[in-house]
Amino acid sequence: MNLKPVYNIAEICAQLGVTEAILSPGSRSAPLTVAFARHKSIRCRTITDERSAAFIGMGIAQKTKRPTVLVCTSGSAAYNYAPAIAEAYFQQIPLLVITADRPSEWIDQLDGQTIRQQNIYGQHVKKSYQLPVDLDNESSEWHTYRTVSEAVNLANQFPFGPVHLNIPFREPFYPAPGEEAEYDTNIKVTNHVKNLADLPHIEWVRILEQWKTFKRILIVGGQSDANEALKPPLSKIIKEQKIPVVGDIISNLHGIDDIIKRADLFLGQDKPGLHESMHPELLVTFGKSTISKNLKLLLRKYQPLEHWHIQPSGYVADTYQSLSKVVPVTPLTFFKKIAERQHQESFDNQKQENFFYIWQIEERKAQRQTNTFFPHENWGEFECIKETIQQLPAGSHLHLANSMAVRYANYVGLENSDVEVFANRGTSGIDGSNSTTVGHCLNSDHLNILITGDLAFFYDRNAFWHNYKIPNLRILLLNNHAGGIFRIINGPSKLPELEEFFETKQQLNAKLLAQEHGFEYLNCDKKTKFKNYLKSFLEDDGIPKIMEIESDSATNTEILKTFKQTYKDLK
Amino acid sequence: MNLKPVYNIAEICAQLGVTEAILSPGSRSAPLTVAFARHKSIRCRTITDERSAAFIGMGIAQKTKRPTVLVCTSGSAAYNYAPAIAEAYFQQIPLLVITADRPSEWIDQLDGQTIRQQNIYGQHVKKSYQLPVDLDNESSEWHTYRTVSEAVNLANQFPFGPVHLNIPFREPFYPAPGEEAEYDTNIKVTNHVKNLADLPHIEWVRILEQWKTFKRILIVGGQSDANEALKPPLSKIIKEQKIPVVGDIISNLHGIDDIIKRADLFLGQDKPGLHESMHPELLVTFGKSTISKNLKLLLRKYQPLEHWHIQPSGYVADTYQSLSKVVPVTPLTFFKKIAERQHQESFDNQKQENFFYIWQIEERKAQRQTNTFFPHENWGEFECIKETIQQLPAGSHLHLANSMAVRYANYVGLENSDVEVFANRGTSGIDGSNSTTVGHCLNSDHLNILITGDLAFFYDRNAFWHNYKIPNLRILLLNNHAGGIFRIINGPSKLPELEEFFETKQQLNAKLLAQEHGFEYLNCDKKTKFKNYLKSFLEDDGIPKIMEIESDSATNTEILKTFKQTYKDLK
Repeated sequence: MNLKPVYNIAEICAQLGVTEAILSPGSRSAPLTVAFARHKSIRCRTITDERSAAFIGMGIAQKTKRPTVLVCTSGSAAYNYAPAIAEAYFQQIPLLVITADRPSEWIDQLDGQTIRQQNIYGQHVKKSYQLPVDLDNESSEWHTYRTVSEAVNLANQFPFGPVHLNIPFREPFYPAPGEEAEYDTNIKVTNHVKNLADLPHIEWVRILEQWKTFKRILIVGGQSDANEALKPPLSKIIKEQKIPVVGDIISNLHGIDDIIKRADLFLGQDKPGLHESMHPELLVTFGKSTISKNLKLLLRKYQPLEHWHIQPSGYVADTYQSLSKVVPVTPLTFFKKIAERQHQESFDNQKQENFFYIWQIEERKAQRQTNTFFPHENWGEFECIKETIQQLPAGSHLHLANSMAVRYANYVGLENSDVEVFANRGTSGIDGSNSTTVGHCLNSDHLNILITGDLAFFYDRNAFWHNYKIPNLRILLLNNHAGGIFRIINGPSKLPELEEFFETKQQLNAKLLAQEHGFEYLNCDKKTKFKNYLKSFLEDDGIPKIMEIESDSATNTEILKTFKQTYKDLK
Repeated sequence: MNLKPVYNIAEICAQLGVTEAILSPGSRSAPLTVAFARHKSIRCRTITDERSAAFIGMGIAQKTKRPTVLVCTSGSAAYNYAPAIAEAYFQQIPLLVITADRPSEWIDQLDGQTIRQQNIYGQHVKKSYQLPVDLDNESSEWHTYRTVSEAVNLANQFPFGPVHLNIPFREPFYPAPGEEAEYDTNIKVTNHVKNLADLPHIEWVRILEQWKTFKRILIVGGQSDANEALKPPLSKIIKEQKIPVVGDIISNLHGIDDIIKRADLFLGQDKPGLHESMHPELLVTFGKSTISKNLKLLLRKYQPLEHWHIQPSGYVADTYQSLSKVVPVTPLTFFKKIAERQHQESFDNQKQENFFYIWQIEERKAQRQTNTFFPHENWGEFECIKETIQQLPAGSHLHLANSMAVRYANYVGLENSDVEVFANRGTSGIDGSNSTTVGHCLNSDHLNILITGDLAFFYDRNAFWHNYKIPNLRILLLNNHAGGIFRIINGPSKLPELEEFFETKQQLNAKLLAQEHGFEYLNCDKKTKFKNYLKSFLEDDGIPKIMEIESDSATNTEILKTFKQTYKDLK
């Protein structure tokens, strides 16, 4: 087999900006392994468990904002990628997923490691390409090269996402011993220039005209990367136009003064009169998902007259059941224009101002509550998360696992504008948080602090099963030996099936895991230890660390209930 | 929500013979969890990691030959099932995969744990059904009930396999505290009577007429369940008609005298003259895949005049590129008819007899080689496997992980007719062998001995992460701290990428894992320990055990090479 066309696949990726690849061991995929491993501008790492490999690759792409290449062999290996691919699809993270396959004539012929790989990721990739099997002719080379260009470009276009290349290989798979890999630096590559979406002047005029007619405008930011440029226009809008801007912890809007961070807490109270007064005439949203179910319930119940969503391109969700206008520009373009508009004092402004203060008063009450409730007489997970978040070192990245970790953190809120937040809220699964964080660790020098529960943590323990150093990893492990969320939500907490079938009691703690991987391990079972341990935990001294909080699920539930009740009782 | 129709899903499953369900924790799936957990004739267990859960469920179905139900919540949970579902599809194991989903109007609306679940398993299920969301009306109830019957029946029809039910649920998901689950024992159930495929008389006449015309007939059995009834007719055919019957270790034909078990070893020698004399005029096959690549190469190179495959129904693979006739009856029906045919002495019989002895001579040489080569001066994995297999207690089940474990075991061959062999040769992945074995342990009293390598073992370590007792689990762990197969096959062994990107060196051993789960742990690093350890390992004393053989990948490779060379040098 002439391996040159395969080497050129790596070359095209490199020329289009790929710098990172995660490979998993396999024989069918050997030509790709050699092609990527030998390419000088692509950093390759190998991870055996493909489920973790894909989440690690996704973590790298989440961090670098560039497509990471994944390479696996044929068969069920490809299916182990699927959870991470679905997450990348909904979280809009660019990935180039390359699966080796048998030539199509050998599918379904009882050969080993052979499944039906064409379109295997269904609707969870932007596109799936089948490459030709015999690359050793001009037509197939042209087909392959243009497809690889197209695939990388597609992954890189907004909304970003995973793209799949399925490549069949015939034996032999390996270069001869001593044979050099030759990359064709003159290979045909198609560059796709990025455009800058703007609106025709007349549309802006209409939007600004309409804008003036609303007396209660609310802005809600969903999950977004940290974006410094967006802060000045949003600050200006808040300050001058008195528009409340809601952004929960995954919106990364926490550097902005007067951002509403704790909507989930204060909207969780059953106060219909207040709720009605908080509902906007115009709702403006941007970004991806929001954590707060209470915010969704409020806005679905008291529907705005209009809901505009700001997104440069792609499918738009009607999260609040009132979507009336899609504005296809970036949030930055939109809010800059809004911030610059002439703002005049008027009776209607007064209404907007009143509306603003209703949101502000609730936010401040919620903030006070979070600060005064702790230290609480019963010590548990919630307090640990609060302390940890408040002491995060500048420049660190905070990773939040799904289920309770991200909810608790969202109650606490983040003040430090120098911390960026990541969470797998594309599918909101518990399956890949360790690996995603490991992906970040492999590609950055700053600390990466993951807050996670025991089920999510042990689910993805193979995240650590490799030979690469991750000295900047910190895991705050909330081990209540069960899926604590099932005790907190209403339905299951009183059923006989609670402990076995919902909470799913589990016995492990992380001590032996830490020992297996050479991590520093701090087991904290009482408050008095916590303060010292936290200091040591957050120290940037070149050793991966786990701080495990072993606490009781029922106590945690009680604390959260009291927290909510205390807030409710506040005047 | 009226939960009764959901309870009735469990009731229909029970009436159609389902007795086992593996549930994974989730809220969206709560109605199903309650329905199955409370049903008196279905044994439910909960497993948190859905990847392991699905393989455990598959192991149960592999053992019981009845559909096991899998239940998971919405989102990426469903995708974690995929590797086991692909394995079940190609290994033809009945599964009823039930995934909870959001109602379709909420798909793609940025809600948590929501992906595109319809047809999520693509071409790896026999069928995927979408159930209605509002079950509280007669039409939907009828739709649901007939679909559940159809799905269980379909999973249960040859070729068996996984069937998918995607069921959307609206809140509330939980019954009120104290509310009893009511099952409608009079619920409409469709029973599907099993038929007994036979051929018209005239077809049998033709087959038997044709049979007589071939002078060299070879029978090859692929992967099959142990089948005592098949042994007498096959024995008779071997003895009277002198037809060689090839069956490697996963064919479960090892109780039959003169079965050819070591074809992979003796066909691996480069002896063209011999190979030509071993090729049949008529090749008759049954069962699923065969391990031996050398057998495939022989039969593809020297194609038979005819290749008949015996399989009652379903798609038939053309594994040897010479498929000429599909005989749609069970192997038992077919071989009984062949065994009963009148057999006359003739010149042609002499040719068949010569052909038979050529195969027999090679088999016996290979058998002698395996017995005389050991004990070998260098001690390693191969010898451990041989000793273990030869000392397996009667009635135990042998599980073989993919990659080297199943290949070594196939060289050794199995003599004890009272041992049944299982291996995930549907997709031949390394991803679920622990879990599959655990599924067996949960449903049987006899010992289940898994032979596995370190990559497969640690890949699937979450197989043990649950609260159920598995005292009858034995794992012989061949830990060479790498994917040893890559040193054994030719291509990668001389490349600079060998250790990092192919073998994928890994540092773990199983000591801490055993400690985590309360398994007895025997670490065997030299021959002198092995004998005593093996005795203790195979003792049926109510404790799960791991015997870990830590050996060197390069030494193992050397031993296998010497083994093959010694065989080649035999006269």
